[in-house]
Amino acid sequence: MSISDEALEKHRAWCGKIETTPKMDIRTRHDLSIAYTPGVAAPCQAIAENPEAVYDYTLKANTVAVVTDGSAVLGLGNIGPHAALPVMEGKCDLFKAFAGVNAFPICLDTQDVDEIVKACVQIAPAFGGINLEDISAPRCFEIERRLNDALDIPVFHDDQHGTAIVVLSALINSLRLVGKKAQDVRAVINGAGAAGTAIAKLMLSYGFEDVVMCDRNGIVSSTLEGITDAQREMLAVTNLSDMHGTLADALVDADVLVGVSAPGVVTRAMVETMAEGAIVFAMANPVPEIYPEDALAAGAAVVGTGRSDFPNQVNNVIAFPGIFKGALQARAERITEPMKLAAAEALAGLVSDDELSADFVMPDPFDPRIAPAVAEAVCACAQARA
Amino acid sequence: MSISDEALEKHRAWCGKIETTPKMDIRTRHDLSIAYTPGVAAPCQAIAENPEAVYDYTLKANTVAVVTDGSAVLGLGNIGPHAALPVMEGKCDLFKAFAGVNAFPICLDTQDVDEIVKACVQIAPAFGGINLEDISAPRCFEIERRLNDALDIPVFHDDQHGTAIVVLSALINSLRLVGKKAQDVRAVINGAGAAGTAIAKLMLSYGFEDVVMCDRNGIVSSTLEGITDAQREMLAVTNLSDMHGTLADALVDADVLVGVSAPGVVTRAMVETMAEGAIVFAMANPVPEIYPEDALAAGAAVVGTGRSDFPNQVNNVIAFPGIFKGALQARAERITEPMKLAAAEALAGLVSDDELSADFVMPDPFDPRIAPAVAEAVCACAQARA
Repeated sequence: MSISDEALEKHRAWCGKIETTPKMDIRTRHDLSIAYTPGVAAPCQAIAENPEAVYDYTLKANTVAVVTDGSAVLGLGNIGPHAALPVMEGKCDLFKAFAGVNAFPICLDTQDVDEIVKACVQIAPAFGGINLEDISAPRCFEIERRLNDALDIPVFHDDQHGTAIVVLSALINSLRLVGKKAQDVRAVINGAGAAGTAIAKLMLSYGFEDVVMCDRNGIVSSTLEGITDAQREMLAVTNLSDMHGTLADALVDADVLVGVSAPGVVTRAMVETMAEGAIVFAMANPVPEIYPEDALAAGAAVVGTGRSDFPNQVNNVIAFPGIFKGALQARAERITEPMKLAAAEALAGLVSDDELSADFVMPDPFDPRIAPAVAEAVCACAQARA
Repeated sequence: MSISDEALEKHRAWCGKIETTPKMDIRTRHDLSIAYTPGVAAPCQAIAENPEAVYDYTLKANTVAVVTDGSAVLGLGNIGPHAALPVMEGKCDLFKAFAGVNAFPICLDTQDVDEIVKACVQIAPAFGGINLEDISAPRCFEIERRLNDALDIPVFHDDQHGTAIVVLSALINSLRLVGKKAQDVRAVINGAGAAGTAIAKLMLSYGFEDVVMCDRNGIVSSTLEGITDAQREMLAVTNLSDMHGTLADALVDADVLVGVSAPGVVTRAMVETMAEGAIVFAMANPVPEIYPEDALAAGAAVVGTGRSDFPNQVNNVIAFPGIFKGALQARAERITEPMKLAAAEALAGLVSDDELSADFVMPDPFDPRIAPAVAEAVCACAQARA
């Protein structure tokens, strides 16, 4: 049976991939009187008197909302909040399965930025964090920024920052493998949308100094027509030598290529012009910018994709569960740039010198050390700066 | 240890009374590829093509939002959405424990009617029903009405209708016990707010013909000062003989007293003036309008309260889990008056002639037949009228 057919059959049998489960038995009048009335009045009053007590007595301490408007779901596009629900339920499962964090899907029946922000603010009391998911750019930037300003719980757009953290962890280990330093290399990011921008920002925070972004029209530069406000903002910190031209031009002598763009847009000939020890992460899904065998044949030293059937899969599941777990443990109000860097470094550190190879620059997603290590690093970073 | 102290200690240990639980193992890359990407795209596409398929592939089919704004929580009043959370979590537990229905707390950080309506509409995609809880009158009337108009999933204010259904079931059996018929009796409802109004409406739907409502100023009549719009509306169907005066005046020769008002407002002397075979449900909590021993000493034939330590506890937990289960099974768009009557009759029917006594007019809350019986009755009623 194909993956699609099996998934359809299983989803029909599950009819919901998560359920809500009481943590206690309710079998007697006494049970009822403790978990519900009249006993429940006591924690209610405690919270009414001290709002911080909501973290002591309720699920808020360990629960995340997975919020979408269904505007940019997987590669399926704007399929709306109902059709997005299976993805959000799956995401909720991963939060629990990988890090023990409760998560519930909030699929919003609006695609208006003001209304999305307002709805998230209004539902926030029961949640300790908000994971934004599959919201299209550039709306996702404004929504995340405004929510982080409005709320005292962390708000994190996983498609941007989760991806950026995992990519950075892979780059850290790839550089370790080829013996280069972040500040010495030239990196090209093909795809200047939400993910590409977040990747560029986090790379710069880490210590990369020469990052060039490209979109479908070529190198993002001061003279490129039709660039967005977000892209123009990035020009203050990227493409500092003011390169012009095509992706192919950008790749000549480049050390790193990160693709978050479209199938097949990178050729063997382009990779051949890259510097020795080239690192290529081609994450268009399911068909990458260039297949690993082609990139390797063209001289790349390390190649990764978004697919589980090739080595070095860039998979957000190694990041977001532990990140939220750590942020919740620290009761952080935001997931800051240093916390993201700490997560990336913790991930990279899980691959030992002995294990590190061109086919293994990231830990296996099912390595049970991952979420605890990420959570600990994120929590420690948040507490150190609190 | 007191109930309060035990509840506080347990709530701290639980730190959240519900959790979200994956329905499947996620231990292998294959598991991931079915529950999440790439397999999850198949149910997403199926729903995008046919919106009704959301009921086949997601948790919507069996999940309820428990929504509050924290404006009227238990007897604690307007303590806000955070302090309301322990009650909402408890309610969610009861949904699952008693009827296998998933439920998640939505505590809204707004008390504006327009905003509450909008927020509920916007979060509706992931839910198969909305249970409104602890929202103050008269706002709760408008919110429920507007949501039922706006949404194609059932919206049900439990404080009103759940209470009304359980009271009606108790009255049906109490009448059975004293050998009177609904259409022949005079009933007085003390408390003309949300619950009192809902009880009056459902009693009238069932067949009571002579219902008089009182508030703290006396009998609600055309000349009572300061009556609300909702109370004025009820005058078209209640107090048809246009009685005036006090609660004591209303109770002379009355057959039924339903109290949803305040501690101790009903005296022995008042009950003594009621008709023979008087039925008294005094549900102010924790101190009832009149204690059972006093009402019985004054000649009442059946007495019930809201407390678990006296016979005949009016407890919503025997109604709402089964009602939502039945409505979800029928995929009903509303919980209609006939569905509420069907629920009340199903509840009453669970007490056999042999069991029926002055101390036992409602089934025990832990009777496992309850939720299935209520659900079946509600579902059948919805399907018969669909």
